[in-house]
Amino acid sequence: MSDGGEISALYPAQRLHFAREAAARAGLDALLVCPGADLRYLTGYDALPFERLTCLVLPVSGEPCLLVPALEQPVAAASAAGASGLEIVAWNETDDPYAIAAARVSGAKRVGLDNHMWVEKAAEFRRVLPDAEQDLAGGVLSALRQLKTPAEAEALRRAGAAIDRVHARMGEWLRAGRTEREVGRDIADAILAEGHERVDFVIVAAGPNGASPHHDVSDRTIEPGDPVVVDIGGTTRDGYCSDSTRVYAVGEPPKEFLELYEVLLNAQRAQVEAVRPGITAEQLDAVGRDMIAAAGFGDRFIHRTGHGIGLETHEEPYIVAGSSRPLEPGMAFSIEPGIYLPGRFGARIEDIVICTERGGERLNRTDRDLVVLPA
Amino acid sequence: MSDGGEISALYPAQRLHFAREAAARAGLDALLVCPGADLRYLTGYDALPFERLTCLVLPVSGEPCLLVPALEQPVAAASAAGASGLEIVAWNETDDPYAIAAARVSGAKRVGLDNHMWVEKAAEFRRVLPDAEQDLAGGVLSALRQLKTPAEAEALRRAGAAIDRVHARMGEWLRAGRTEREVGRDIADAILAEGHERVDFVIVAAGPNGASPHHDVSDRTIEPGDPVVVDIGGTTRDGYCSDSTRVYAVGEPPKEFLELYEVLLNAQRAQVEAVRPGITAEQLDAVGRDMIAAAGFGDRFIHRTGHGIGLETHEEPYIVAGSSRPLEPGMAFSIEPGIYLPGRFGARIEDIVICTERGGERLNRTDRDLVVLPA
Repeated sequence: MSDGGEISALYPAQRLHFAREAAARAGLDALLVCPGADLRYLTGYDALPFERLTCLVLPVSGEPCLLVPALEQPVAAASAAGASGLEIVAWNETDDPYAIAAARVSGAKRVGLDNHMWVEKAAEFRRVLPDAEQDLAGGVLSALRQLKTPAEAEALRRAGAAIDRVHARMGEWLRAGRTEREVGRDIADAILAEGHERVDFVIVAAGPNGASPHHDVSDRTIEPGDPVVVDIGGTTRDGYCSDSTRVYAVGEPPKEFLELYEVLLNAQRAQVEAVRPGITAEQLDAVGRDMIAAAGFGDRFIHRTGHGIGLETHEEPYIVAGSSRPLEPGMAFSIEPGIYLPGRFGARIEDIVICTERGGERLNRTDRDLVVLPA
Repeated sequence: MSDGGEISALYPAQRLHFAREAAARAGLDALLVCPGADLRYLTGYDALPFERLTCLVLPVSGEPCLLVPALEQPVAAASAAGASGLEIVAWNETDDPYAIAAARVSGAKRVGLDNHMWVEKAAEFRRVLPDAEQDLAGGVLSALRQLKTPAEAEALRRAGAAIDRVHARMGEWLRAGRTEREVGRDIADAILAEGHERVDFVIVAAGPNGASPHHDVSDRTIEPGDPVVVDIGGTTRDGYCSDSTRVYAVGEPPKEFLELYEVLLNAQRAQVEAVRPGITAEQLDAVGRDMIAAAGFGDRFIHRTGHGIGLETHEEPYIVAGSSRPLEPGMAFSIEPGIYLPGRFGARIEDIVICTERGGERLNRTDRDLVVLPA
């Protein structure tokens, strides 16, 4: 674990207080939060997402508790949640943990469930709280989570620097004759070695595979002249995520690829430069989309511009057409336009950016020009 | 990916047919299955568990389809799902994918949601299907999933052999003076090197940490005389999981520990030998619990005996007091009694066992005697 001071900056105990106030304003009588990013955000406890019930029970009036299986009580107690003084209630294998939770929120008329709670757990809560309407807690919690504190921004900077160190080493691994899978394995090792606790994804998409945005790795052998899209990310020890995409060419790529890449590079730069408080998500999306469309690739940019990032790789705010949400200082998100030509090649450039009062701060700083490696 | 023959044995297309028949018998008009083990079981597609909707839409009458975000269409098409001929429907970023799904099951009165579906997705399905009652699909699907086919049993044998190879190498890494975390990193590397695609968990619990069943790793330095509980597992390339626990001693452990270990070893062996069709989960649990209680450790065995395993590490059937479910041939589960003395040490021995007509077949075969390594 990190030192106590760092943890308390990242998972301050007053978050429970803020969440409770926001829940009350939303007309909820309690929040029920199972393992996942919401639980980690509120308590600092990185719980196992298993079938046994682990749940933060947070009534708007009354004392909160963290309900955990007895066999995980020592782990919960040793976490930031235990250190914060939050009451930890352990249940035994033959107890009904849902009944224990219900007793802590008796009389609740509306409860907010964390958005990623499994429906089987929601059904159990319905059994023990038959008179309580179930609603999503996501509105309440994402409003808090998407505005990063200075400590969280710093954690995201560390994550960004960690993944940048991996990209900076790409020349060690990426060359013609190796398979995407072999390269991917080396990258995964480096993600851990360069400051992450977990590898979240490794996309190595060579040649035509680059036209599949969520390709992972395959047994395709990288060929001379292949453009290779490398989109990688992991989670650091304090829970914050990295995510950055760069495009490499192994030897000289086709001329049409260079033209496409130039369009993409300009669009991505313009989008990063357009970040400022008040611009809406859809306006920011349009900045790049319009440039790519003007170059004739409008129908080849087949996904949104980006996603928020923090304790999850994908979270609010989404930078997508149709979202009139204005950006605010403290929001952190990816800017990752892409152009995909099925059967030929594709490209995507991705940086994590934090919106500040003065504009966008890039957290990924490796070269965005096409990196041509020796074949 | 594995070769086509192997995939079709592991993810046969007729599973959709079986699931549909079972859903109809349960009074459901359709199943809606999002990313996770249920989706992989039914289609062979190992989808990303993200916020964008990926969903198998399986009406009991009418054609099924796999709804995927457009940017993941190439990945889905290249998977076993695509190879099976299942219709793949791609939705674009500004479409309403839930409305597309609803149109495929219009008129449904009761829909079954996979048990791990996020409540935010269930809420969206409620929006587009306001007249359909939502139920859990888990009863229907786990009845299928818990009876392993011969191909699945073989996949679990491969997973068991892979994790056994890691345990067999423990002497390379485990010694006094190293931290649990350092040892854990080596084990994680070996889990990948010895035939898994993903590391699921690595518990290295030395000395008093052994009394915390779900400890992971810490910065504790292993000391001479420490008993060390090592509980590790991963997922193989075809999706099946391993999970095995052994206890090592680094140098001579305390005499009381040896006595405790002997009790545990006998209890675990008796439980494995008691496996047969017809014995109930609670009877099997009691076989070990009674022996451990008779030795005076009844209140120190603080968890159930085991959990089913397959495409998930924890799935039905659970071997737990209160479950009168009779075991059937084809069920695969862990037998992992433990004894925990807080502040001192703990021990757990875990094998995966398949119930056959002739009794239990152990899938983990490394020595269960306490392995004493040089300090």
